[in-house]
Amino acid sequence: MDIREKAARMKAVSPFMSASSEETRNRALQAVADAIRAQKQQIMEENQKDLEAAEEKGISAPVLKRLKFGEDKIQDVLAGIEELIGLPDPLNRITLARELDEGLRLYRQTCAIGVIGVIFEARPDAMVQVSSLCIKSGNCAMLKGGSEAKRTNRKLFEVIYEAALSAGLPEGCMMLAETHDDIDNLLACHESIDLLIPRGSNEFVQHIMNNTKIPVMGHADGICHIYVDKDADQEKAVPIIVDAKIQYAAACNAVETLLIHRDIAQTFVPKLAKALSDAGVTLRGTEEIRKLAACEQATEEDFRTEYLDFIVSAKTVSDIDEAIDHINRYGSHHTDCIITENREAAEHFMQLVDSAGVYCNCSTRFADGFRYGFGAEVGISTGKIHARGPVGLEGLVTYKYKLYGDGQIVGDYAQGKKQFHFKDL
Amino acid sequence: MDIREKAARMKAVSPFMSASSEETRNRALQAVADAIRAQKQQIMEENQKDLEAAEEKGISAPVLKRLKFGEDKIQDVLAGIEELIGLPDPLNRITLARELDEGLRLYRQTCAIGVIGVIFEARPDAMVQVSSLCIKSGNCAMLKGGSEAKRTNRKLFEVIYEAALSAGLPEGCMMLAETHDDIDNLLACHESIDLLIPRGSNEFVQHIMNNTKIPVMGHADGICHIYVDKDADQEKAVPIIVDAKIQYAAACNAVETLLIHRDIAQTFVPKLAKALSDAGVTLRGTEEIRKLAACEQATEEDFRTEYLDFIVSAKTVSDIDEAIDHINRYGSHHTDCIITENREAAEHFMQLVDSAGVYCNCSTRFADGFRYGFGAEVGISTGKIHARGPVGLEGLVTYKYKLYGDGQIVGDYAQGKKQFHFKDL
Repeated sequence: MDIREKAARMKAVSPFMSASSEETRNRALQAVADAIRAQKQQIMEENQKDLEAAEEKGISAPVLKRLKFGEDKIQDVLAGIEELIGLPDPLNRITLARELDEGLRLYRQTCAIGVIGVIFEARPDAMVQVSSLCIKSGNCAMLKGGSEAKRTNRKLFEVIYEAALSAGLPEGCMMLAETHDDIDNLLACHESIDLLIPRGSNEFVQHIMNNTKIPVMGHADGICHIYVDKDADQEKAVPIIVDAKIQYAAACNAVETLLIHRDIAQTFVPKLAKALSDAGVTLRGTEEIRKLAACEQATEEDFRTEYLDFIVSAKTVSDIDEAIDHINRYGSHHTDCIITENREAAEHFMQLVDSAGVYCNCSTRFADGFRYGFGAEVGISTGKIHARGPVGLEGLVTYKYKLYGDGQIVGDYAQGKKQFHFKDL
Repeated sequence: MDIREKAARMKAVSPFMSASSEETRNRALQAVADAIRAQKQQIMEENQKDLEAAEEKGISAPVLKRLKFGEDKIQDVLAGIEELIGLPDPLNRITLARELDEGLRLYRQTCAIGVIGVIFEARPDAMVQVSSLCIKSGNCAMLKGGSEAKRTNRKLFEVIYEAALSAGLPEGCMMLAETHDDIDNLLACHESIDLLIPRGSNEFVQHIMNNTKIPVMGHADGICHIYVDKDADQEKAVPIIVDAKIQYAAACNAVETLLIHRDIAQTFVPKLAKALSDAGVTLRGTEEIRKLAACEQATEEDFRTEYLDFIVSAKTVSDIDEAIDHINRYGSHHTDCIITENREAAEHFMQLVDSAGVYCNCSTRFADGFRYGFGAEVGISTGKIHARGPVGLEGLVTYKYKLYGDGQIVGDYAQGKKQFHFKDL
């Protein structure tokens, strides 16, 4: 059976998955956690084989780091599952209840989206995290992991799927796609897959977005900015910038470009340059910045680059509107911050910057589902449709309208024999 | 300036449009209504020219009917605008307010999506309706109407745009694309246009969906079903079916296929066939249906067809699950109804049928923003992402996260120096 047939079958299973009770879904999550705990050794052994094969192939150190699924990551995913069990059920919530006319009642009720396709590069923890989120939200999951992690993923899938079935979730609610061909076939399954969530590099996500008709949730780029306003508290600005750059430079919410108000550049840039240099960060500045501190030359290209590294670009701006304009033009609508003590300037910036996160006086690194208190994160969306910013369980549900009548027909209303009265219940 | 440059410029205007005050947007809507009222004669004159040109070209009667923008349609759109003014502001609503830690406050606030591309076939009333919805929701609108309505649209656009500017909305917040080439160029504007709303025939919407990377909101097909359960009240079922078919046969929410429980087929089908015949509806049935009433033969193809005409297909099913399976397989996830007096059967059906609208004992024709009390409708979405079913103003907004801090950095939380405490405000 090829992946398209499997996806079509999964589509048929999806209404039953969405109809599963909260109790069943939570019991399945508990079974998953118990099984991972019980089979920890075997999982780590499979991971060890993947690691060895990857090392032989000469895979880079950062990928090896992501691939490694050791004791600490296992504890993290287990803690994540326990937390997920405690979260309120995202399904069957009534978000609108209205009497349209006597005996004609309309309800809008949340339900699972259906079939979620998840494509991720070499990160076994993402596999556990996303499967758990799909279970909690009653979605079927078609999972495709990176080939480097194939032994780990296969073992994890086996453990998770068996646990899910043992708790009473329907057969076929989860599938693992393994071959590389499967990706292209998966992208063609717009009849069966309702939403794709790719997790990986910019190029990877871009490739997915450009080659499918299925809606894609995620972000390709994370070009985040910090604008240091003329009314900034410079003592606050420096540690925020350093944190936003180095706390985890490879993250999408790390800062890539600094915009500095010309009025404070003379005093601020030297301080900033020293702090960045002390932190091991390379500064690339425009001519004006370079007059104030020794640094590399920034080109137009720098302002369009997500370094994901210990490099940051900087330029001066003559006012807040130039900063806003730069961000809306060069940014990726992810997370952008203003440093200012001027409340009015902050509001102006936060209103006009067109990004999922608009911050005042804090690090861009806060853009994260866990730090927002969502408990779990599907990913961060830079799209504006459906879900924006860090996406928790809410991003995995949709709704349906239920209308209960007693023989009502539209003709009676069109002819004026009856009238709607719209009364919220 | 070609359409891509225009769209890019509109993108730059969009944050200012989203930042316009509720008062400005409502004043603009009032100005639009006043201007349409004042220039009614000129608008109808332009429409008359379009009608004459269309008649000369031999355009079909239904298209002519949609093209005509006379006194009654003008009154309808004016009433629509007045109602829109009265609706609560969809922007700047706080949907989450949370203290993450002392002095670190997170808000989720609704904002406009940005630039909406609207492509509609020959319907001048849609032009007014959609522009008004975009004004109310603070979105920029790139409008492309059908060529048959070009004089009417040009006049209407002029009237609406001038009124919007006079009320203080930003220049460039609305544009009219006129040539056919513009459509292809519009579809390529994924950098500038955030959402496309096509309104027109199935083929038209399908074409749009298949040729753009921009998210599309709408429905291509409307293949709606009514399932007559063994516990149906047959006296209720017949008028519901007739209404769902003939009240407006060309609508997407008209019923196309009837599924009849075998246990009641013998008594129900003859009654049904007579009522349909009396109403001028052609019945196409399976063998089993044809044994109970004279009718045309239904083929597999019929169950995949949106007739948009006085034709309905029918088949018998042996139980409710066969009906659900048929609907999920052949339907378009628009609106599907069960006729039953059995509450448990109704719940089972409404849970497992994977459609935007799941109804019990009423006509599928109720699937409509006005009838749901939304006041105005952007369209009906059969997608599951972002918005589903009849879409009102809520479908035209997204949100951003605002985070206010006082120097907070992530390093302190990562190192355990500080802890989040998540307190909803």
